[in-house]
Amino acid sequence: MTAMAGSSTSGVRIDAFAAQRAGGALQPYQYALGALGPNEGDIAVTHCGICHSDLHLIDNDWGVSTCPLVPGHEIIGTVTQAGSEAAEMRAGHRVGVGWLAGWCMSCEQCRGGNEKLCFQVRPTCVSRAGGYAGHVRVDARFAALIPDSLASESAAPLLCAGITVFAPLSRRGLKSNSRVGVVGLGGLGHLAVRYAGAMGCAVTVFSTSAGKETEARGFGADRFVDISRSGSLPSAKNTCDFVIATVPVDLPWAEYLNVLRPNGALHIVGASPGEVSVPVIALLDGQKSIGGSAIGSNAEIREMFRFSAKHAIML
Amino acid sequence: MTAMAGSSTSGVRIDAFAAQRAGGALQPYQYALGALGPNEGDIAVTHCGICHSDLHLIDNDWGVSTCPLVPGHEIIGTVTQAGSEAAEMRAGHRVGVGWLAGWCMSCEQCRGGNEKLCFQVRPTCVSRAGGYAGHVRVDARFAALIPDSLASESAAPLLCAGITVFAPLSRRGLKSNSRVGVVGLGGLGHLAVRYAGAMGCAVTVFSTSAGKETEARGFGADRFVDISRSGSLPSAKNTCDFVIATVPVDLPWAEYLNVLRPNGALHIVGASPGEVSVPVIALLDGQKSIGGSAIGSNAEIREMFRFSAKHAIML
Repeated sequence: MTAMAGSSTSGVRIDAFAAQRAGGALQPYQYALGALGPNEGDIAVTHCGICHSDLHLIDNDWGVSTCPLVPGHEIIGTVTQAGSEAAEMRAGHRVGVGWLAGWCMSCEQCRGGNEKLCFQVRPTCVSRAGGYAGHVRVDARFAALIPDSLASESAAPLLCAGITVFAPLSRRGLKSNSRVGVVGLGGLGHLAVRYAGAMGCAVTVFSTSAGKETEARGFGADRFVDISRSGSLPSAKNTCDFVIATVPVDLPWAEYLNVLRPNGALHIVGASPGEVSVPVIALLDGQKSIGGSAIGSNAEIREMFRFSAKHAIML
Repeated sequence: MTAMAGSSTSGVRIDAFAAQRAGGALQPYQYALGALGPNEGDIAVTHCGICHSDLHLIDNDWGVSTCPLVPGHEIIGTVTQAGSEAAEMRAGHRVGVGWLAGWCMSCEQCRGGNEKLCFQVRPTCVSRAGGYAGHVRVDARFAALIPDSLASESAAPLLCAGITVFAPLSRRGLKSNSRVGVVGLGGLGHLAVRYAGAMGCAVTVFSTSAGKETEARGFGADRFVDISRSGSLPSAKNTCDFVIATVPVDLPWAEYLNVLRPNGALHIVGASPGEVSVPVIALLDGQKSIGGSAIGSNAEIREMFRFSAKHAIML
């Protein structure tokens, strides 16, 4: 991948890696860029994360992929040129581009700052080439400036794993006395522990891997529940105000409702292919809820970077 | 039931109706009241609603009843005497007493104004005699003044059916452009339509009874969906921000998630004995949630009466 910082990429060919068929190996691939639009900017890619979603896209697991497919949606790079209307983007800026490549900008969700919920949302990699390339061209409104204190290699995965857990924690309006549970201590779970801790909350990690306790406490967890042990979940009854489930598997949902304190919420960000099922009365008693979300919107991504820089949270 | 307005009831016997055994018919029953405590007040009952929960209590369906059981938890009456510390209660006041008879007043939930979520909450009828009686004695802090414009016979059922639907609608922070769905047009559903309409929302009624459309529109509904018709729910896809399910039966939950718009919530107040079950991905896509609640807390009941009076909402 050849970066051409400071030079125009219009009319030139971009070096990338693409899957030429669903499930195919990534191979060198070139594509042409036309003239730069007034709201567009070109970015010389310096770093790009690898996310499991990239594998799903390459394999067309979601039925939305078209080939050749250039993966990569955790992109950090340097702006090489920006259009006349790209007010926030200037050559030399270090910016990040995540999962969202475009939205309608006119529906109620877009107007309300919830662009990711727009029905016309266009994802990176699917609607245009991703970041496994020398350059990407983006709508400049979808690129976020990276705070100076965040290293690029650390900032890249925050564009997907980071925002996926930061956004629901932030929306919940947690307080310094909130008790947050984090199910799973992978990439998302680790960041959720860090974010919730930085928000001042008491954090419990629920994990099937007893060996991760030291790691969990190192990330700031106050408590570790080894859920491979029989009876561990019932013994954690009524201890959390908010539980974020980061693992893409079926969980004993009713038991996690019991882990919640009154007025608590269970929030799922792990894309389990299964069903969530709980007794109705378990929701009514204690006024509980179960919700879910994926990634975050433009404003939330900018807030996530600010918060991550302030609290030195990075992968 | 003999009211003795203005007279002291200390040391006298109260005429009531009680079930002497689970499932038994209500029969005349007398019980004694001791000396009035400083935070207590006596109320001469003028009206008391009949709620399906009274039948559950009489039949001990929930396993919490003790006999003799005096039912009635939608009580309106006139204060006959009040203790020295009962600051808000004075003889002659017209007050209402609902489902909650007491709570610990010291836990985090109580301190935060969520007394109904207190683990030591004590229900009317179970922890003390209910309102099918000449008088009830209550902790004065749990009695709410009834606005003058609300007739007693209309105000009584608001203490249970009313608050059960008002509280979640109020907590949701609905806006004048919110689209609210109400499933079921019984006592709770009717009030939900009125409250949501008075909050300025566009209201859709989902009912199995096509014959209720005129009634629904009379209550202010903007749209009526006859859910007994095949395909009616799918055709209502993406039309509501908040759906309140007032019927105590299993519903096609996943179809109601589809009725929700992005960021929408399904809220259950009908105590179905079954399970709620939806695909995890249906929560993640569109950032949706499913929750539930029962009745409301002290502050919410007072706000409900104020709102009901302002908008002339009554049964």
